Amino acid sequence: MFPAWQDVAANLVAVAAGRAPADMVVRGGIWVNVHTRELLAGHDIAIKSGRFAYCGPDASHCIGDETEVIEAEGRYMVPGLCDGHMHVESGMLTVTEFSRAVIPHGTTSMFVDPHEVANVLGLYGVRLMHDEALAQPVNVFVQMPSCAPSAPGLENTGAELGPAEVEEAMAWPNIVGLGEMMNFPGVINGSQAMLGEIAATQAAGKTVGGHYASSDLGPAFHAYVAGGPADDHEGTSETDAIARVRQGMRAMMRLGSAWYDVEAQVTAVTEKGLDPRSFILCTDDCHSGTLVNDGHMNRVVRHAIECGLDPVIAIQMATINTATHFGMERDIGSITPGRRADMILSSDLRTLPIEVVISRGKVVARDGKIVPQEVDFTWPDDSRATVNMKRDLSAEDFDIPAEGDAVRARVIGVVENQAPTKALEADLGVENGLVQMDRANDVCQIALVERHRATGGVTNAFVSGFGYDCDMAMASTVAHDSHHMIVVGTSKSDMALAANRLRAVGGGICLFKDGVEVAMVELPIAGLMSDEPAATVAGKAQGMMDAMQDCGCTLNNAYMQHSLLALVVIPELRISDVGLVDVTRFEKVDLFLD
Amino acid sequence: MFPAWQDVAANLVAVAAGRAPADMVVRGGIWVNVHTRELLAGHDIAIKSGRFAYCGPDASHCIGDETEVIEAEGRYMVPGLCDGHMHVESGMLTVTEFSRAVIPHGTTSMFVDPHEVANVLGLYGVRLMHDEALAQPVNVFVQMPSCAPSAPGLENTGAELGPAEVEEAMAWPNIVGLGEMMNFPGVINGSQAMLGEIAATQAAGKTVGGHYASSDLGPAFHAYVAGGPADDHEGTSETDAIARVRQGMRAMMRLGSAWYDVEAQVTAVTEKGLDPRSFILCTDDCHSGTLVNDGHMNRVVRHAIECGLDPVIAIQMATINTATHFGMERDIGSITPGRRADMILSSDLRTLPIEVVISRGKVVARDGKIVPQEVDFTWPDDSRATVNMKRDLSAEDFDIPAEGDAVRARVIGVVENQAPTKALEADLGVENGLVQMDRANDVCQIALVERHRATGGVTNAFVSGFGYDCDMAMASTVAHDSHHMIVVGTSKSDMALAANRLRAVGGGICLFKDGVEVAMVELPIAGLMSDEPAATVAGKAQGMMDAMQDCGCTLNNAYMQHSLLALVVIPELRISDVGLVDVTRFEKVDLFLD
Repeated sequence: MFPAWQDVAANLVAVAAGRAPADMVVRGGIWVNVHTRELLAGHDIAIKSGRFAYCGPDASHCIGDETEVIEAEGRYMVPGLCDGHMHVESGMLTVTEFSRAVIPHGTTSMFVDPHEVANVLGLYGVRLMHDEALAQPVNVFVQMPSCAPSAPGLENTGAELGPAEVEEAMAWPNIVGLGEMMNFPGVINGSQAMLGEIAATQAAGKTVGGHYASSDLGPAFHAYVAGGPADDHEGTSETDAIARVRQGMRAMMRLGSAWYDVEAQVTAVTEKGLDPRSFILCTDDCHSGTLVNDGHMNRVVRHAIECGLDPVIAIQMATINTATHFGMERDIGSITPGRRADMILSSDLRTLPIEVVISRGKVVARDGKIVPQEVDFTWPDDSRATVNMKRDLSAEDFDIPAEGDAVRARVIGVVENQAPTKALEADLGVENGLVQMDRANDVCQIALVERHRATGGVTNAFVSGFGYDCDMAMASTVAHDSHHMIVVGTSKSDMALAANRLRAVGGGICLFKDGVEVAMVELPIAGLMSDEPAATVAGKAQGMMDAMQDCGCTLNNAYMQHSLLALVVIPELRISDVGLVDVTRFEKVDLFLD
Repeated sequence: MFPAWQDVAANLVAVAAGRAPADMVVRGGIWVNVHTRELLAGHDIAIKSGRFAYCGPDASHCIGDETEVIEAEGRYMVPGLCDGHMHVESGMLTVTEFSRAVIPHGTTSMFVDPHEVANVLGLYGVRLMHDEALAQPVNVFVQMPSCAPSAPGLENTGAELGPAEVEEAMAWPNIVGLGEMMNFPGVINGSQAMLGEIAATQAAGKTVGGHYASSDLGPAFHAYVAGGPADDHEGTSETDAIARVRQGMRAMMRLGSAWYDVEAQVTAVTEKGLDPRSFILCTDDCHSGTLVNDGHMNRVVRHAIECGLDPVIAIQMATINTATHFGMERDIGSITPGRRADMILSSDLRTLPIEVVISRGKVVARDGKIVPQEVDFTWPDDSRATVNMKRDLSAEDFDIPAEGDAVRARVIGVVENQAPTKALEADLGVENGLVQMDRANDVCQIALVERHRATGGVTNAFVSGFGYDCDMAMASTVAHDSHHMIVVGTSKSDMALAANRLRAVGGGICLFKDGVEVAMVELPIAGLMSDEPAATVAGKAQGMMDAMQDCGCTLNNAYMQHSLLALVVIPELRISDVGLVDVTRFEKVDLFLD
């Protein structure tokens, strides 16, 4: 554990008083003060024992022979940026590699919800993430996942979490709250399990994350709020943001790889003039490519400024507001005495170039390049053996038998750039007792391959919208939220090859064309995460997208659609290990219509 | 304990969803939203189990047959006011009577530091205050006193507190932090005891109160901040306020009976435009008369508005800002779901008339009159037996012997309306081996009578400035901070009478003139507090001030000066049980000059 303020207070007092030298002094910068909302030129910052010891007009008295002095003249001294809600797994990276990717972008604190790992490895997986988080040179705080499974009764996950597990996790040193409470119908209906998880979190004095993915702002919304969630990042409009903040929640505004929710909501501040203190910026989900090419929280802050926010207010939304929300304002979120010495030097407050990143008093990145830090954590072997299939599959495992000459079947309809699917129907021919795909009309097969308990289960169904026009199959063990294996293909033999290949490598994403592997992203940890660097993973993910395109899929970033086809909490039609699910009615439905 | 949100969440959810009736609905008011800083007309508030269940445009679905409905049309619905730092003992009232006095003024949350009781009864007394606080129908949260004694080595108190006691108290259910850390030289010098108390508080995740009573904003100030105090109410200028907030402290601005620190500091917000979130309003010390005649936090908020603050921002400084500071924003400080249902109805936001006060869902006051609530707490007998003198005193106990015809003596000089004294000198005659008072030059005697350990000690010295012009004596067991007994008089026999009378009644303040008791405020609890109502105590206190005036004292509210003459932390000259103390050098000095 990084030492607490009280563990080093005597050192800090001695430095501020001039009785002992600082470890580092940053001199003559423009102090971005997120408490007062001022820009204060010509200030010095002294650091000792990884925390700020002195912040004022002149730190000369804190400089000794061994003190590292950094000249910051003319540059802004910005508190290290905080990501208020995010999933490391979205980057398909370990916490270590995710941190290495975002540190050069100025992110020094992350509030991560290891929801995906929890669905595969349960509390054990959460603990591993927790421990890896603690080993980082930046602050990675963990929210205990609240919803595994996401849809009880409609799917079987690798593990289940409930109030008992939440209570246990709340005692861990690096748990700061409950991860997004996605089961909002459960809360609204007074589910004992969901309210029990919230109660365990509140009793521990920690923060309950919210997730109210509905546009209904009537009694259902108010009932959800009354249940206890303290924030929400699912708002997509100004109305949503205002409604949440009025209720005493904090509105978390997302700019992720596929989320663009800042611009529509920030007008609550820029135009409606609401007190900005209850607004927080976050990413929620970032792919490796975004981290490598576009940035992280610096991208979000810059975007918020482009949307019309005052730069200091935008920075508040990624620093002190976040810290206050999690009850950590005395530990992180500002450049003031006692706080962890997390700071960025930047020569422009609007474009926010990240020139120097200091974390806990050490320079961890310069000019976009990381200064490597030792991280003492290794993912154990059992976390790398999670593709637990009963046996290798053959093309026959994907046969869909039927009688007669033709059937009318339900078809999952993929929609570009959207998480919801369409519940389509199609007339399909039957030959030799087997339903045939209809490549001409873009109807191919999808299979949900059970991979947690070796049941041997394969759920077969149809999907449309990818536009695959050759013999191919794509398989992925990233299959929200239960993370079985989703295989989509026009060729059953390629489907078997892809599934078996993922079994062999311990999980990932692969694409076979004409019987040959043409793309592979190995994700051996829980079948969700690589332990390679972000740039490598981003390159392989790009290779996967190129291969999809080469197979005829012209949708934007359609890998995301692929990985969400088992997400049985978002309408309309999904697949799970229990069958085809109508997510407008939350019930299992038959593949064939009468 | 009042049930926590999680204890009643299911009830709140059911009400908000319309499945169960609310206990109370307040209808059609103007919702003062301290999260968004909006005034929202035409809103309804539903309350259940003492907490807000629904806050929105229409609570019709929450109303059942048994629901009490209060029409609020056209009136502002203001969160119950919070006093961020105060001492109940300053009112010379029990917590129960103090609460009864302030509830009609709209105060529903107080953060009290029982520093005075602690100096008399130690941790036991703090626990009694803690338990009495818990029994109130409003929220009275306790800060663990940090400095008993205030001046180690320069006084002996009834009890001492240190890091071990702080650690113990932090586990009590109603302790929210450490009371003002007045020993700022100790913190600056790295005192293990003071840093130990702060560490115990921070380790418990609670808030460390500050008290930096110095105008030095150089390294000493920065060292104090680095030690951990999270707020300060000792600022008296705009510069003070800005300095504190820049350092990540919260500036608590006082309007007490004798403190007028809002006007000079609030310009940091009204003129300099600082983010108001770090500013908090408080009273620190209010006499009973102020509570009876002028108000409490409503007076402070009104004053802040008169000083130019936007009314909603002023209300934020007495509600959500305070709640956030103490990590309680999910429990108090706003009218939003889950919070304790503490609310005021007022028909004007600038003059803030307090028309209805609701605390935890019950109407506790209407139109300035309390709706009596049962309070289950009795101060035990041992708390009423604290005037522990060895024996009754006689006039001779106040003799000050000297040789020769005359002496040059140090004299404590009282200054009107100020806490500091002047270190004066006077030539005094000696008759029959005893130094004589000099009534013509307003030099009379002062005695510090030991009353905690029955040592029989009497420290005699001289005081000037009261203007007493007859034979009289005034005695008080309110004698900051050690709370021995201070006797001031022109007549030694009256001094003995007054001291013995207080011994007989268990403490208080009394004035004898020409051998007759002319005023008395009985304070049997710890010698500090009455258990009579505020109006009664205020009346008796007024009688005391009238009696002082009748004896020739024309100073404004000179009782305060009397009670502060043993406060050996404020310059220049004071008296304690160890002798006369020079508080510019923090050392004992002789009564006579060479």
